[in-house]
Amino acid sequence: MTDTPTGRDVNSLLRRRYGAGAPTLTDPALLSSDTLALLLRHRTVRSFSPGEVTDEHVTAIIAAAQSAASSSNNQSWSVVEVRDEARRRRLVEQAHGSALIAGAPVVLLFVADWARAAEVASWQGAPAEAADYLESTLVAFADAAIAAQNAVVAAESLGLGTCYLGSLRNRPEASAAEIGLPQRSAVAFGVALGWPDPDDTAGIKPRLPQGAVRSREGYRETQRADVAAYEQELDAYNASQGRSGSWISAVVARVRDVAGLHGRENARAALERRGLPSH
Amino acid sequence: MTDTPTGRDVNSLLRRRYGAGAPTLTDPALLSSDTLALLLRHRTVRSFSPGEVTDEHVTAIIAAAQSAASSSNNQSWSVVEVRDEARRRRLVEQAHGSALIAGAPVVLLFVADWARAAEVASWQGAPAEAADYLESTLVAFADAAIAAQNAVVAAESLGLGTCYLGSLRNRPEASAAEIGLPQRSAVAFGVALGWPDPDDTAGIKPRLPQGAVRSREGYRETQRADVAAYEQELDAYNASQGRSGSWISAVVARVRDVAGLHGRENARAALERRGLPSH
Repeated sequence: MTDTPTGRDVNSLLRRRYGAGAPTLTDPALLSSDTLALLLRHRTVRSFSPGEVTDEHVTAIIAAAQSAASSSNNQSWSVVEVRDEARRRRLVEQAHGSALIAGAPVVLLFVADWARAAEVASWQGAPAEAADYLESTLVAFADAAIAAQNAVVAAESLGLGTCYLGSLRNRPEASAAEIGLPQRSAVAFGVALGWPDPDDTAGIKPRLPQGAVRSREGYRETQRADVAAYEQELDAYNASQGRSGSWISAVVARVRDVAGLHGRENARAALERRGLPSH
Repeated sequence: MTDTPTGRDVNSLLRRRYGAGAPTLTDPALLSSDTLALLLRHRTVRSFSPGEVTDEHVTAIIAAAQSAASSSNNQSWSVVEVRDEARRRRLVEQAHGSALIAGAPVVLLFVADWARAAEVASWQGAPAEAADYLESTLVAFADAAIAAQNAVVAAESLGLGTCYLGSLRNRPEASAAEIGLPQRSAVAFGVALGWPDPDDTAGIKPRLPQGAVRSREGYRETQRADVAAYEQELDAYNASQGRSGSWISAVVARVRDVAGLHGRENARAALERRGLPSH
């Protein structure tokens, strides 16, 4: 069975996202929202067919990205569109071999960008000291993420597939050099973009039960039963994809010790060299 | 003229977003995308009418948030739904008087959350040392932002209005105490949610010219002409809203010196006390 999601039935999509414990909605306004269905059936696409992604596609996608909210309207992000094949191949190496970068016709590099604000300040002879603080780095990464997610939703609404590329943070200085970034800016992540390969069967990946992530009025501690239920749902999904692997084991490997960061334990020093020192 | 955006004409929406320099699209697939039009006509809503936001609305919105991508499927974010009026009023004070928190029927607090992963690790007797690094803080903030933007898009697709509340980072320890957050977690930002007050005339806020944010193959330095054009477009928009204020002046005030951070220069120390030390 291919798992490629195309349906518009909100409750079916919720069952695929959450499995046995899925909520069921009854409000006709919710059940009839095509955009809600689009969001629920998101899947990551890692292999692409040769179809062209036009300049107009990218223009529309970035207009959607810019239309998202931005902290105090500072717009502290930028995006560099990479199509050049040699450049994509070099980025693969920087991303420790994530081959899909070479296979996607377009890679959008989302940049956490205080360089623009610093340049504007320089026109008035002003410094840009506030860019040096962790708050500013967080704002730029969050603004870039909010913009990128609108880009992803716009792309998916057109039938395109996407994959976030956090691996481009592995070597912040190399990716910055590749696209000529000025000081006070760094690649936050990439988004690969293209027409999905029809043979890519990646489906709707189950998520934690909603009750494990959402609580009312106060934070709810993590429940073993929620995590155990999720481990089962994800096991079943992975098996349907011909894969195996435990979520619990992956999470523990990620947080246990510095090895889980695969070199990104140097992010603070690397961003400091990029002019984003996170004081 | 009220500026409340309701149209579905993509090129009209682009002209409102970019002004005189707007791109014009011709591809019928782009012009007919209702989701693209929804994204382009985003506006921030700061006053709400008394209509109910149901539990099903929030369930659908958070299902959309969980359906977004998450770094390595770690899902390092949570959301706390606040409806209690007294709690909303206390959050207003923590956000330095942002009164709309008290006026919105629902405030979603998006939490940068490594507490869950640390708890899962503790079940195996493992520590969570990798949560101590800047990379992990950035991932949690970016994951929360990606999820929150899907929540915003889902809400807007249902006719609800939203406003991001970065001001909830002003006092990370106070907001954490208000909702009982464990160590290794902090409120990244809030999203106010409700039915738009029909008298709220906030419209489509102009953004920087697309060419100022987007470049091809390599980063393009900021051009004075782009910023000057934007300053004019934003002036005209502000005047139509009965406001004034220069974007350049706002940006310079934000970055010039530490005063632009309004206390958030303490973010690093405050997050460290929350168990997110950003090594």
